[in-house]
Amino acid sequence: MLHQAAIGLGVRLRFLADAADDAAVQVAPDWEVGSAMSDVDLRRFAATCGVVTFEHEVVDLEGLEDIERGGAVLRPSPATLRLVADKLGMRRGVEWAGLPVPPWRQVKTVEQAAEAAELWPELVLKPARGGYDGRGVFITAGPEEARATAERLLTRRVPLLVEPRLSLQRELAVIVARSPSGAEVVYDPVTTVQVDGQCRQVTAPAGLPDHLDRRVRELASKAASALDVVGLMAMELFEVDDQLLVNELAVRPHNTGHHTIDAAVTSQFENHIRAVLDLPLGDPGLLAPAAAMVNVIAGPDCSDPRHRLAAGLAADPGARIHLYGKQPRADRKIGHVIVCSHDATDAARRAWAVVEALGGAVPEGAA
Amino acid sequence: MLHQAAIGLGVRLRFLADAADDAAVQVAPDWEVGSAMSDVDLRRFAATCGVVTFEHEVVDLEGLEDIERGGAVLRPSPATLRLVADKLGMRRGVEWAGLPVPPWRQVKTVEQAAEAAELWPELVLKPARGGYDGRGVFITAGPEEARATAERLLTRRVPLLVEPRLSLQRELAVIVARSPSGAEVVYDPVTTVQVDGQCRQVTAPAGLPDHLDRRVRELASKAASALDVVGLMAMELFEVDDQLLVNELAVRPHNTGHHTIDAAVTSQFENHIRAVLDLPLGDPGLLAPAAAMVNVIAGPDCSDPRHRLAAGLAADPGARIHLYGKQPRADRKIGHVIVCSHDATDAARRAWAVVEALGGAVPEGAA
Repeated sequence: MLHQAAIGLGVRLRFLADAADDAAVQVAPDWEVGSAMSDVDLRRFAATCGVVTFEHEVVDLEGLEDIERGGAVLRPSPATLRLVADKLGMRRGVEWAGLPVPPWRQVKTVEQAAEAAELWPELVLKPARGGYDGRGVFITAGPEEARATAERLLTRRVPLLVEPRLSLQRELAVIVARSPSGAEVVYDPVTTVQVDGQCRQVTAPAGLPDHLDRRVRELASKAASALDVVGLMAMELFEVDDQLLVNELAVRPHNTGHHTIDAAVTSQFENHIRAVLDLPLGDPGLLAPAAAMVNVIAGPDCSDPRHRLAAGLAADPGARIHLYGKQPRADRKIGHVIVCSHDATDAARRAWAVVEALGGAVPEGAA
Repeated sequence: MLHQAAIGLGVRLRFLADAADDAAVQVAPDWEVGSAMSDVDLRRFAATCGVVTFEHEVVDLEGLEDIERGGAVLRPSPATLRLVADKLGMRRGVEWAGLPVPPWRQVKTVEQAAEAAELWPELVLKPARGGYDGRGVFITAGPEEARATAERLLTRRVPLLVEPRLSLQRELAVIVARSPSGAEVVYDPVTTVQVDGQCRQVTAPAGLPDHLDRRVRELASKAASALDVVGLMAMELFEVDDQLLVNELAVRPHNTGHHTIDAAVTSQFENHIRAVLDLPLGDPGLLAPAAAMVNVIAGPDCSDPRHRLAAGLAADPGARIHLYGKQPRADRKIGHVIVCSHDATDAARRAWAVVEALGGAVPEGAA
């Protein structure tokens, strides 16, 4: 999706791909195979680029820091990446920056998990590292379940971020694009629907009352500046009792901004490229009164949406289908559908119908 | 631009490129170098594709006919391509199909040109073949100039289509996407501005009175069906004394449809791919009340818009810049700018300002 956005700007991207069948490799001419966890691969790759940026966080941070000291231009910087690399560090950082966060604890032992469960009967446990894309969120009821889940998770020797399961009015997200100079644009806050910790649906605009809309933008802007983000930052928030709590941050193009590809004047991907190249940022406004994005997630049958493309297109001539060219594996995000409409509910209903026609997983009550 | 549209559908395109620095080759991974005028190259290329389509008309028609007889799927078919390959044949065909055309003559000798100039003092001369993209349109005043121009043009041994220079109210264009089954969608008619026979500006919608809007769509639909088009057909029309005259047809993605990339629910490029793959067609409707597309055409200084990208982006955060990665040569189309707005005049004004900032040629009185 970054490549698609770069083409029109005349910007040529080079990809460091995990494997020769990587999604980017299928559609872009300039790539090399290597691991973002290998400082050798990163160094070799960075030497061929004017600016290096990132679309995921699974990177060798120490390697990057060394490469940056060698003079490579990394945007965002490894310093920024380090601040969000670990859920516990991120939570601490957000709190230090003065932003509201959910109650939380660090859990390193089974006993600490049980203690937390005494305090908060329904518990959310998240390994501090290694989760991606919402997977890696575990919910338990009561100390025994908390103890058992913690025992299983702690074998990976990664501490847990533990918090009470809150009664959410809704989940929100917002994307900021920020330049090296500090110039920024903030996208309209969106409402997200998560199922089993995985983003399933995004609707824009969130339809927040003015004071909350302003507050979301303010929090995002404050965090982006505290992190000294260059490129994109996505902030996920909980709305609880008319209060906003910052849940997570990511410094890359984010699933909660995918609707901007078709629904915004400038997509998150284009603004990411503009930001990391220190080019003027584009209008983040919506082109339509409302839009919805629904992920195409492979179901247990692993059916391939590419084989049902005609059905998906026939389901709604106004919908926009984006497939990633990834092999379907259960629970894997392999595409998304965007619909612009006069209202968000209608857009979401239509997007789900297309996802269903494509054979994507549809949780009960969603469509 | 076809490649950009194909990515999201999970459709993988393979390109037959003139040279290894071709625009498509810079952004797409799968291509081979060869000439569309060589039956050997075409045959080798077609053997590797499920469906072959075209983005220009400079092709070896006999070779294609032979390849089609061999079982390759060519869309549109060589039969359709043949009907529009020659301006004289196209004009005759459009007339035979019962559509209104400007008065015209075939000119094969200097004397015939002089005769036409007696009849119509201001003359438009177009070589029947070999023109591309509006270049190859010559206007003369009086028999002497007509004679001299014809003499020069006829050395290429290509007959001329000659017509009076009409007093146009405006020039219009319309794009149809049509499936093998005959299913079609028609885009909103647009107003075009041509300078020296080259398209400079497109605005949508054309703002036609209902009866003319209906008539344009009707003419386009009739022509697409008469030609048995599969894929896109663009029709360019003259509006003269509240009458519509069909000027030219093209059966490929067309400059007068470039605004649909950002301004329509489904771009012409995506609908071309859908049509030639016999997939359901997408909504051609506009996302905004109005849109303008202005071409970035290299000026005599051949400055490269890639070197002025920051200025172009700064000129209007709401504009969409599309550069083709082509070397600037005087009068060459090397990109375009799209602006969506509440009205077409505002959109055009803004698009011209960006083109100017990019260093593109701006004819007097345009911006």
